[in-house]
Amino acid sequence: MSAPLPERVRVVEVGPRDGLQNEPRALGTRVKLDFVEALAESGLTDIEVSSFVRPDRVPQLADADEVFAALDEKPGVRYWALVPNETGLRRALEVGVRHIAVLASATEGFSRANVNAGAGEALTSLEPVVALARHAGAEVRGYVSTVFGCPYDGEVPPRQAARATKALFDMGCSEVSLGDTIGVAVPTDIPRVLEAHDAAGVERSRLALHLHDTRGTALANVWAGLTEGITVFDASAGGLGGCPFAPGAAGNLATEDLLHLLHGTGIGTEASLSGVARASGLIGRELAHPLPSRALAAFRGSRGRASDS
Amino acid sequence: MSAPLPERVRVVEVGPRDGLQNEPRALGTRVKLDFVEALAESGLTDIEVSSFVRPDRVPQLADADEVFAALDEKPGVRYWALVPNETGLRRALEVGVRHIAVLASATEGFSRANVNAGAGEALTSLEPVVALARHAGAEVRGYVSTVFGCPYDGEVPPRQAARATKALFDMGCSEVSLGDTIGVAVPTDIPRVLEAHDAAGVERSRLALHLHDTRGTALANVWAGLTEGITVFDASAGGLGGCPFAPGAAGNLATEDLLHLLHGTGIGTEASLSGVARASGLIGRELAHPLPSRALAAFRGSRGRASDS
Repeated sequence: MSAPLPERVRVVEVGPRDGLQNEPRALGTRVKLDFVEALAESGLTDIEVSSFVRPDRVPQLADADEVFAALDEKPGVRYWALVPNETGLRRALEVGVRHIAVLASATEGFSRANVNAGAGEALTSLEPVVALARHAGAEVRGYVSTVFGCPYDGEVPPRQAARATKALFDMGCSEVSLGDTIGVAVPTDIPRVLEAHDAAGVERSRLALHLHDTRGTALANVWAGLTEGITVFDASAGGLGGCPFAPGAAGNLATEDLLHLLHGTGIGTEASLSGVARASGLIGRELAHPLPSRALAAFRGSRGRASDS
Repeated sequence: MSAPLPERVRVVEVGPRDGLQNEPRALGTRVKLDFVEALAESGLTDIEVSSFVRPDRVPQLADADEVFAALDEKPGVRYWALVPNETGLRRALEVGVRHIAVLASATEGFSRANVNAGAGEALTSLEPVVALARHAGAEVRGYVSTVFGCPYDGEVPPRQAARATKALFDMGCSEVSLGDTIGVAVPTDIPRVLEAHDAAGVERSRLALHLHDTRGTALANVWAGLTEGITVFDASAGGLGGCPFAPGAAGNLATEDLLHLLHGTGIGTEASLSGVARASGLIGRELAHPLPSRALAAFRGSRGRASDS
C-alpha cells in the first residue's frame, strides 16, 4: 500500500513527559507550567503533560498532580497524562485529567525490565485501568514500545507488535502510537510493521508513529509513514529526551524538525515552528544543556528568517 | 517516476575537503593523510581529499599539494580534488591528481558571492578547465550548488539548476552532484528537481545528491532520492562541515548516518560504518569539538554492538 500525502497531520507533543522524565536537573512546577502553556500557545492540540508514576521512580515528574491542578488550560487542547496503573489513574482523575495514556510493550524483555511483568500479563493488567478511565469519561491513548527493535530481545516480529496494538484497541483505546523506543527503525520497516497491523484488522487512521532520531533516521521514517497513510506523529519540543548523559545526543524526534518537514512539503498542522521554538528556548535555558533539534538550531541561526510557517 | 530501491549505492566522501575547509583549528598534513587513509581503509571508493584554491582563501587546505604528494593511494580508490580554475588544475595535475571536481552555481547570487562572477560567466570559465583536465586524462565531476534554495536568491527554479547541470555534462563531466548547499530541501523537492533534469535530457544514473542536514531532513531526502532512482550520494565523515562557530550544528549529511540508513534497508555499499567511525574518531580528536553525526554517537554509545555492517 502506498497512499497520497495527507493534507493535514496531527502532532502529539510529548516533551513535557517523555522529554523531561530522564532529565537529571530538577525543574520547578512553575517552569513546567510555563513550558506546557507555551506549547499550547504554539497551536499544538495534543500535549502530554506528565506521568502519574511513583515519585521515587521518576522524581522529575513527582509533581504531576500540582502541574495539572495549576494548569491554565487552553480550549481545544488535549492535555494527556501517562498512567501506569489504577493508582496513577485515580490520581490523574482526581485532578481533572480527561486524556489518559497507557503503555504496553511489544516485547517480553522490555516489558520485564520496565514493569517487571511479561508483555501479556502487563497488557491484561491495563484492561481495568482503561475500563475505569473510559467509565470516567476519559479518552485513552495507547503506546506500544519497542515495536521496531528491543534492547533485550533484538528484532521484533511485526505480528507480535500488532497483537499488542490490537489488544489496546480491543480494551478501548481510541488511538495507538507505535514506538521506535531505541531509534533503530529504517524506512523499509514502516510498511512492514503497518502491513502486519492491516492483517490484524487495525485501521491505519487510528495509528500514530512515535519515532526516535537516535541514528538520524526519524524524519526518513516519518516520510515513509506519510506515504503509507499515517497522519499522527509524536514529537518532543527541541528533541528533549535525548540521552541526558550525552548532551546533544538525539532521542525523541524533535517537534521543530517534524514541523519543518511537514510545512515544507505542504502538509498542514495546527502548530507554528516559531511557537514551539519559543517553548524549547524556555525549557532549554532551565536545563542548561544543548537541545538536539536540527531545525531549532537552524531557526535560531537564521533568527526565524526562513524556517517559520 | 518512482523507481525500485537500488541494490547498491556509491558514496562519495567529502569530509577531508568540504568537511574541513571551514574548520578554524589548523590541522597538520600528517593528520589529514591519516584521516584520508582511514577513510580509504573503511572501504570508501571515492574520497574528495582537498581543494587547489588560493591558500589565503581557504588556509585549512593550503597544503593540498603536500597532501596529494604524500598520499599512500589504495588501489581502486578515486581521490578527488576540487579546482576553481586553470591555475588550481595545473597544481593538481602536477602532483598526479586524476580525479577533478569543479563547482558551478544554480543561482546568480551565490555565484557572485562565491566566485565574483555571474552563474553563466562562471560556467563558461569552467569550459577550458574541464577540457584541459580531460585532455590530461582526468575524470571530471561537477557540482551544482544552491539547487534547492539560495541564501541570496531564495527559491530556485528547478529548470535553472538543470541548465547548469546540462552545461557541466556538455563540457565533459562524467557525473554531476546536485547540492542542497543551505540544507533547505524537503522530500517533495527531490522529484521536482529530478523531473526538470529529465526534461533537460540528463540521465538520472549520472546524477548524485549532495545533501545537508541543517534542518534534519537529509536522510528523508536521501530516501526520496533512492525511490527516484538516484544511486550516488555525497556525505561527510562524522557530519564534518557543520557550522564551526556552533559546535554540534549540522551541515553536511554524515557518512555514518547515510550508511546506517542504506545498510539497514538492505542497500549495499563498499564502506563499513565502523571503519568510517574510526576515521571520524581520529579527526574528531584533533578538532576537539563534537561531530554532529547521530549514527556515530549511537555507534559509540553502543560500542558498535548493533549498528555495524
